[in-house]
Amino acid sequence: MTATATPLRPRTDSSLPGRLALSAEATDAGHGMRTEDFPVWLEGRARAHRFAVKRAPLGALDGWSFAPGTGDLVHRSGRFFSVIGLSVGVDEGPYRHWEQPIILQPECGILGMLAKEFDGVLHFLMQAKMEPGNRNLLQLSPTVQATRSNYSKVHAGAGVKYLEHFAGPARGQVLTDVLQSEHGSWFYRKSNRNMLVETYGDVRPDDDFCWLTLGQIGELLKLDNTVNMDARTVISCFPMGSPGLGAGDAGVAGEAMHSDAEMQSWFTVERSRHDLDITRIPLADVRDWERGETRIGREDGRYFDVVGVQVEAGNREVTGWSQPLIEPADTGVAAFVYRRLHGVPHVLTAARVEAGFLETVELGPTVQATPVNWAHLPAADRPPFLDLVRNARPEQITYDVVHSEEGGRFLNAESRYLFVEADEIQAPDQPPQGFCWVTPEQLNALTGHGHYVNVQARTLLSCLNSGSVHLSSAMPPSPSSVASPSSVASPFPPLPSCTR
Amino acid sequence: MTATATPLRPRTDSSLPGRLALSAEATDAGHGMRTEDFPVWLEGRARAHRFAVKRAPLGALDGWSFAPGTGDLVHRSGRFFSVIGLSVGVDEGPYRHWEQPIILQPECGILGMLAKEFDGVLHFLMQAKMEPGNRNLLQLSPTVQATRSNYSKVHAGAGVKYLEHFAGPARGQVLTDVLQSEHGSWFYRKSNRNMLVETYGDVRPDDDFCWLTLGQIGELLKLDNTVNMDARTVISCFPMGSPGLGAGDAGVAGEAMHSDAEMQSWFTVERSRHDLDITRIPLADVRDWERGETRIGREDGRYFDVVGVQVEAGNREVTGWSQPLIEPADTGVAAFVYRRLHGVPHVLTAARVEAGFLETVELGPTVQATPVNWAHLPAADRPPFLDLVRNARPEQITYDVVHSEEGGRFLNAESRYLFVEADEIQAPDQPPQGFCWVTPEQLNALTGHGHYVNVQARTLLSCLNSGSVHLSSAMPPSPSSVASPSSVASPFPPLPSCTR
Repeated sequence: MTATATPLRPRTDSSLPGRLALSAEATDAGHGMRTEDFPVWLEGRARAHRFAVKRAPLGALDGWSFAPGTGDLVHRSGRFFSVIGLSVGVDEGPYRHWEQPIILQPECGILGMLAKEFDGVLHFLMQAKMEPGNRNLLQLSPTVQATRSNYSKVHAGAGVKYLEHFAGPARGQVLTDVLQSEHGSWFYRKSNRNMLVETYGDVRPDDDFCWLTLGQIGELLKLDNTVNMDARTVISCFPMGSPGLGAGDAGVAGEAMHSDAEMQSWFTVERSRHDLDITRIPLADVRDWERGETRIGREDGRYFDVVGVQVEAGNREVTGWSQPLIEPADTGVAAFVYRRLHGVPHVLTAARVEAGFLETVELGPTVQATPVNWAHLPAADRPPFLDLVRNARPEQITYDVVHSEEGGRFLNAESRYLFVEADEIQAPDQPPQGFCWVTPEQLNALTGHGHYVNVQARTLLSCLNSGSVHLSSAMPPSPSSVASPSSVASPFPPLPSCTR
Repeated sequence: MTATATPLRPRTDSSLPGRLALSAEATDAGHGMRTEDFPVWLEGRARAHRFAVKRAPLGALDGWSFAPGTGDLVHRSGRFFSVIGLSVGVDEGPYRHWEQPIILQPECGILGMLAKEFDGVLHFLMQAKMEPGNRNLLQLSPTVQATRSNYSKVHAGAGVKYLEHFAGPARGQVLTDVLQSEHGSWFYRKSNRNMLVETYGDVRPDDDFCWLTLGQIGELLKLDNTVNMDARTVISCFPMGSPGLGAGDAGVAGEAMHSDAEMQSWFTVERSRHDLDITRIPLADVRDWERGETRIGREDGRYFDVVGVQVEAGNREVTGWSQPLIEPADTGVAAFVYRRLHGVPHVLTAARVEAGFLETVELGPTVQATPVNWAHLPAADRPPFLDLVRNARPEQITYDVVHSEEGGRFLNAESRYLFVEADEIQAPDQPPQGFCWVTPEQLNALTGHGHYVNVQARTLLSCLNSGSVHLSSAMPPSPSSVASPSSVASPFPPLPSCTR
């Protein structure tokens, strides 16, 4: 044996799930402020800055132009992002081929949350950050939200605060650092690093920053349009162990309807069974979309428009800029249908094909749709479980909050996020092809790797991780669901084969 | 709580690593045959069939032609695979831009091994399979090796034997099912399902099949060109727990130089720091490559040729066919440099950019190169650690065996696979950028997911999983390596930042 100078360490930090759970239990107050005082603080930060976002014609966005030949909407620096065209062929659903604009931003950014213990409880340094696409402009964001353009100083503004904790030789102890995808319908193969870093040094919160516990953030996740998408996705990647369980649920961790190997096999089949044909095309060639003075959009108004805004702000890296944004047609719905199976909460996840995903499919919520885009179709062609979610009785609805999508790229992009409890008639043990029952614990383990869980499902997971939602049951057992497990001949439903 | 009919199960099968380890210990004999009798059996299978592989001009391959316009080499069915062109821009190394032919095969195949216990020991149903690119034609392959073309009967031959255990309603208990990449220099974004399935029913081995223990396969992995690539990659994905440890190594499992979170963060940085520009181009447009009568290749003979063969066989799905193959310029080298740190074996993995990877980089061996392609370059431009491996003293070399790469697509593609022990002078604790010390246990965990560990590293892992290699130490401690761990101020080397 060769002795060496570098000591070994455990592969996993077994104390971290417990420390995160302890922080999630602190819902009322932390080192920084009481939760009830947060809205006043956020209003104060809004008043402290001069923000103005105005719509502007696409041809009048400073620094932006339509590239000759392709018609792609590009920045003169060649950086930030572009709007290009995409031709999409899929093998399921009512629409098998379409073309659309999509955002191309190959650079990988950092979404980072800095953690520190105060009085033995983990706190997270959160920022009141303006994003031009947010209806209320200012929302709670991670410590750092930096594109590589940001931190390589492309727009020659101020440096990103606290970035040194996440990159470079003086960075803190990395607890999580994983590449995760963003919206696959609006971004072409975009991913960002989701980082949680712990510091043991003194860190003074700047004016726009505050220390909050995970439980406090969980409370704020009960408010509409308050915790931004970047904060939600970072929280979804926290290695919690068994999120979403309530008091008295101890002992059910580690069990699930499907073993991890079975779940992985189902996912592998979903990834490999689809024939997709996805090709970048010039924006000018995109069929069914027209370029007008103020928007690139469809005549029927469906899906989204590409629009332009002029921004003035006092506490951003630069004091003013123009940019394109994607503005969806209407509010979306993203919902996990859930059931408690033998006392263990399971959510019904869907293997979703999104045109911008790097690899075919990722796991999304049970329902992820903008209903107005589907209203003209016959019921059979609408997304499965959408009616179940929209017609849910109040006692079925555990969570129903509107959140904004990434306000740096999307304008007024809001979705209703829901957890809806179902019975086995509404959501049977053997769901339709493309759906699988999984535990939040299983999804949490998958967020330790990239390209498994999509950004909408991650928002819902962040509610479980932060204790904003506990998947308790308010429903009585249905008469048909009291059969003994031993009476069932085949415990595992046959999986679809790769052959189709 | 809503009771339901489907019983729960543990997320992970805690008995599986032990059952696999038990099978790896059975090296001499199994249910089917003694290990020493295997070569005679394989020769018998070779004699039982009529195999002939002849080189043929590219223009004379039945069913294959150069597509008008692009010059891509395609099959008339539009299936199987094509040879297209690729333009590659990278940001490191002596070559920053090149163009090359590459195989495009978007379909996802199944590489599947069927397992069954005999007398309490897991055995694997292995096949003596002819592949036209293997120098010795017949090698030991998994139970099933099926492209989607195979099992959707594109070439109208016989069905794939035992496929029903891996796909469809009657399949067995899935122990592993994960998409893994193939050779990124020769395949464009190709991946296959790596499956391990256990059956509890009676399975009669056909003439070309035999049941072997994992330890028996490990013994055969000590022979040149005997266990094929498909078998090696499936074995690399076996969930072993702690592979590569010898007797007396109990107690060191679960420890490593870097925690899993640190290793993941290093990998995330490597994935996000590269600027790559990889574009499909028509084969006819590929610069520096010429199409002759018998080959598409470079004037300097480097890298590889695209050549054609005619095949006659008696036990394949069809009795004869023609196809292109990629023929590398020379034998490759794939080696893990390893050290035992505080008694725990660590291999030095490299974050490799390969043009055909779906996502930028994967983890490869310390050295992966075809030396003849680098011989004309100054020493500083040659791959790091190549000289260490080539000049290793006999007592440093734990494993040195020649294996064939995928014989269905590559002709005479052979690589020397090595494990080479180093001291901390040769391979320091803080390696160059792009390298990281990891335990086999950590790599084994990563093979549970796709696109982490490349196919060459997986071959080396298969040697650990099967017990073919134990990473013991024959080297004395070096004088500088006996410092006490507590004397070190900074236990973890600073990681490169995303900013560069």
